[in-house]
Amino acid sequence: MSDQVKYLLSEKDMPTHWYNLAADFPTPMAPPLHPGTGKPITGADLAAIFPPALIEQEVSTKREIDIPGPVLDIYRLWRPSPLMRARRLEKALQTPAKIYFKYEGVSPTGSHKPNTAVPQAYYNKSAGIHKLSTETGAGQWGSSLAFAGSLFGIEVVVFMVRVSFNQKPYRRAMMEAFGASVHASPSKETDSGRAILANSPDSPGSLGIAISEAVEVAAKDPRTNYALGSVLNHVLLHQSIIGLEAMKQMEHAGDEPDILIGCTGGGSNFAGLVFPYLGRQLRGGRKVHVIAVEPTACPSLTRGKFAYDFGDTAHLTPLVKMHTLGSTFVPPGFHAGGLRYHGMAPMVSHAAHLGLIDAVNRQQISCFEAGLLFGKAEGILPAPEATHAVRVAIDEAIKCREEGVGKTILFNLSGHGHFDMQAYMDFHDGKLQDRTYDEKELAMALAGLPSVGA
Amino acid sequence: MSDQVKYLLSEKDMPTHWYNLAADFPTPMAPPLHPGTGKPITGADLAAIFPPALIEQEVSTKREIDIPGPVLDIYRLWRPSPLMRARRLEKALQTPAKIYFKYEGVSPTGSHKPNTAVPQAYYNKSAGIHKLSTETGAGQWGSSLAFAGSLFGIEVVVFMVRVSFNQKPYRRAMMEAFGASVHASPSKETDSGRAILANSPDSPGSLGIAISEAVEVAAKDPRTNYALGSVLNHVLLHQSIIGLEAMKQMEHAGDEPDILIGCTGGGSNFAGLVFPYLGRQLRGGRKVHVIAVEPTACPSLTRGKFAYDFGDTAHLTPLVKMHTLGSTFVPPGFHAGGLRYHGMAPMVSHAAHLGLIDAVNRQQISCFEAGLLFGKAEGILPAPEATHAVRVAIDEAIKCREEGVGKTILFNLSGHGHFDMQAYMDFHDGKLQDRTYDEKELAMALAGLPSVGA
Repeated sequence: MSDQVKYLLSEKDMPTHWYNLAADFPTPMAPPLHPGTGKPITGADLAAIFPPALIEQEVSTKREIDIPGPVLDIYRLWRPSPLMRARRLEKALQTPAKIYFKYEGVSPTGSHKPNTAVPQAYYNKSAGIHKLSTETGAGQWGSSLAFAGSLFGIEVVVFMVRVSFNQKPYRRAMMEAFGASVHASPSKETDSGRAILANSPDSPGSLGIAISEAVEVAAKDPRTNYALGSVLNHVLLHQSIIGLEAMKQMEHAGDEPDILIGCTGGGSNFAGLVFPYLGRQLRGGRKVHVIAVEPTACPSLTRGKFAYDFGDTAHLTPLVKMHTLGSTFVPPGFHAGGLRYHGMAPMVSHAAHLGLIDAVNRQQISCFEAGLLFGKAEGILPAPEATHAVRVAIDEAIKCREEGVGKTILFNLSGHGHFDMQAYMDFHDGKLQDRTYDEKELAMALAGLPSVGA
Repeated sequence: MSDQVKYLLSEKDMPTHWYNLAADFPTPMAPPLHPGTGKPITGADLAAIFPPALIEQEVSTKREIDIPGPVLDIYRLWRPSPLMRARRLEKALQTPAKIYFKYEGVSPTGSHKPNTAVPQAYYNKSAGIHKLSTETGAGQWGSSLAFAGSLFGIEVVVFMVRVSFNQKPYRRAMMEAFGASVHASPSKETDSGRAILANSPDSPGSLGIAISEAVEVAAKDPRTNYALGSVLNHVLLHQSIIGLEAMKQMEHAGDEPDILIGCTGGGSNFAGLVFPYLGRQLRGGRKVHVIAVEPTACPSLTRGKFAYDFGDTAHLTPLVKMHTLGSTFVPPGFHAGGLRYHGMAPMVSHAAHLGLIDAVNRQQISCFEAGLLFGKAEGILPAPEATHAVRVAIDEAIKCREEGVGKTILFNLSGHGHFDMQAYMDFHDGKLQDRTYDEKELAMALAGLPSVGA
C-alpha cells in the first residue's frame, strides 16, 4: 500500500495550449447551417452572440491553440488537477486491471466546467462585452460561469431549468454568491419564455428552452453575449486540458491507458479527456479503446440519429450535424441533470460516426451503486453524472477479472456530488427508480427532425 | 498576474511525522483530572474509550511522532494540501500586505477533519476495535470519521446535534453514504439522551449532550471506542501536518509569515496551522503574531475563564484545564456550528495563558461579508467557520494599507462552504442576524464551574 496513488503535475508542466481534434480528423465535419437559409453559417452570423476569438476557435482546424496568460493564471487556482490510481477500488473488485481517474472535482465549483467558463469570460471581456447570458440545468455550468464572471468583472445572467431551480436552491445560492442573477426558465424575461408560459404555465422547463431564452437575451443586446457550457467545438477545445494533463501524468505513472471512459451529456468532459488520446492515435500513435457512457433515459449516441438538428427548442441556434433525439424530445426526469440534453457535441458525434469511439448507456440505480462503491473505497462521492463513468470503469475492471487480463483503465471523474446529496439520500431510502424514455415520443421527435442538409 | 499563486508540495516532501507543541512549552500543562476523584487521570482510566496509541499520544511530550505508513497512504488522497497566495484579494483590498492561505477544503469531506479521523480510525482498528462512536455538530467531523471508518472497515455511529440533524440532511446523507449510522441527539439510545428527553422532549441538543451520548456508548461496550474531532491533545497533534506543510510551502514561496490566523471552535484547525510555527519560535526561531478568531456568540478565549471544567454536559469526561464558558453554557444559534463549543482545547488555552497567542471575536454578518469578498476574488466560498479567519485576515490587510506596511499574512482556510449554502442564502436574503450570548447565562455557567483543581 505504499505505492504512489496521486500524480500531480507541477505548475510549470501545466499545458500552455489546448488541443484541437479537428486538425486530425481523417474527414472533415459537416458545417453548421444557418437556421433561416439552410446555408453554411459565416462568422458574421455568429458575431451577434460570440466574440471574435471564440468564433475563430469554433471553426479552426489548427492543432494547437495557445491558452492566454490571464486564463492560465486562473487555471492555476486548481490546475493541474490530480490524476489518481484507485488502488482501494481495484482491491475491492479483486481485479488485475489498473484503474486510474482524472479528478476534475477540485475546481472552485466542483466540476470540469470552469475549464471553459474562464476562457469564455476572458475572451468576452477582452472584446468589450459587459454581460453574458447562459442556461443551466443541474447548475454546474451556471455556477462556473458565475465564478468566471466574478473574476473578470463581467455580469452573468443565468436561465436555470425551473425544475432544477426549485430542486437545487443551493446551486442557485452559489451562483448568487458569485454575483450572478438567476431566473427560473421558462421565465417572463424573454419572448421564448413568455410563449411557452402562455401555453403551459406550469412548464418544468428544459435545457432546450433555457438555451432559447439565453440566446434571445444575447441576440437583442450588442453588449451582451451568449455562453454555452458544452456541445460547441470551442468548449471541447478548452476541455482538452484535461487529457493533455492526463497524458503527462500517466507518463509519470509509467502507464498507458488501454481503455478511456467518460460520461456524456453534451460531451465536453468526455471529449476533454479522450480527444488528445484520439489525436495521438490518428497521427499513428497508440490505439485506445474509448467508451462514452450516457444515461439510458437520454441516449443520444446509442439511440439517436446522426442528423442536422437545432440545439434549442425555439430553433434560434444554428443547425448542427450531431447524434440527436430530436430537439422536441423531453427526457424523463433523473438525477444526472447534466446529461439531460437531446443532442451530442458535433465533434463527439463525428468521432462516433468515424468509428473512433464506442457508446453504451446505463440506468441510474446501477450508476449510484457504482458511485457508492467508489466513494467508500476512494473517499470521493461522485456527481450523479460522473457515476456513469464510474459504472463502466467498474464493469470493465470486472470483465478484466473474469478474463484474467490486466488492462489499464482511465476514466474522467468530472465532478463531486456535494450538491447532489438529495440523490444519494433518495438512493439510500430506496426512492430512486430507473428511467427509460418513451419509444413513441422518441419516434415522434426523430420524425420531426428538420430536412435541411439531409 | 503571471506570478505563481499556488504552492504544491510533491508527495515525497509530505511530512512523515506530526509535531507536538508539548515538547516546547516553557511550562507544562495542568494535568487532566478524574471526574470522580479529582486526582490526575491515568492511562488506565482512558483505556475504556481510547486505544493505547492515542492515550500515549495524549500524554506525550515527544517533539516528533511518526505518522504510520497506512495513514500516510490515505493522506495522499488529498495531501499535501495547496498553499495559495490570494493575489486577487490583495488587489481588491489595495493592500501592501501579502495574503497567503492554506486550503484544507480539498479533503474528501471538505475540511481539515480527516487529518485526525484517519489516524484515529487506524489506531482503533489496529487495537481490534470494531466500532467508533462520536458526536457531530455541523457534520464536518461526523462525515470525516464516517469516511475514515469506511476506508478501514470500522463501524461508525454518530450522535448529531438534533438542530443540525434537521437543518443539514445532506451532511447526514454523506455520513450514511460512507456507511455510518446517524442518530439525532439527544436520542433514546443512551441513558444521557433519555434523561434529557424526559425533562425536555423538544431539546435542540448541543455538542456537550452529544458527547455524553457518544462517550456512554463507548464506555459500555469493550469493542466500541470513542473518537473526538477536536479539543484533545492527540487531535491537535494530528492536525500539525497543516502547519508542517505550510512551513515548507512558504519556503518555496520565498516568504515567511508575520501574522498567522485561524478560527477557533475546539481549536484543532487553528493549532494545526500555528503550533509548528510557535514551536520554532519557542526554540529561538522567528517570532510570529498569532491570532485566534472566535465567534462573538461563543467566545471561550476572549470571555471564558481559564479553569478546570468538563468537556460534556453529563460530566462523563475528565476535567481539563481550559478556557471555558462553563459546561452548562448554551450558545445562541448561529451558522458556524463547528465553533459552537463551550470550551477551548487545553493546549490552545495553555498557549493563550502563556501569552503566545492573541484572541479576538467577530460577529457572523461581518464574517459572511468577508467570505463573499474572498469568494468573489479567489473562487472559493469558505465554510462559515472559516469566514472568521478570512474576516481577520482582511482586517489585518486593511490595517497594513492604513499603516503603509507590507506584512505577510497566512491564514487557515479550514473548509469550503458547499454544505452551508443555506447560510449564504440567508445572508443574500438579509435574514442573517448577529448573535450575542446572554451575559446573565454566562455568569451563571461560570459560577457553576467545578471547584476541583482551582
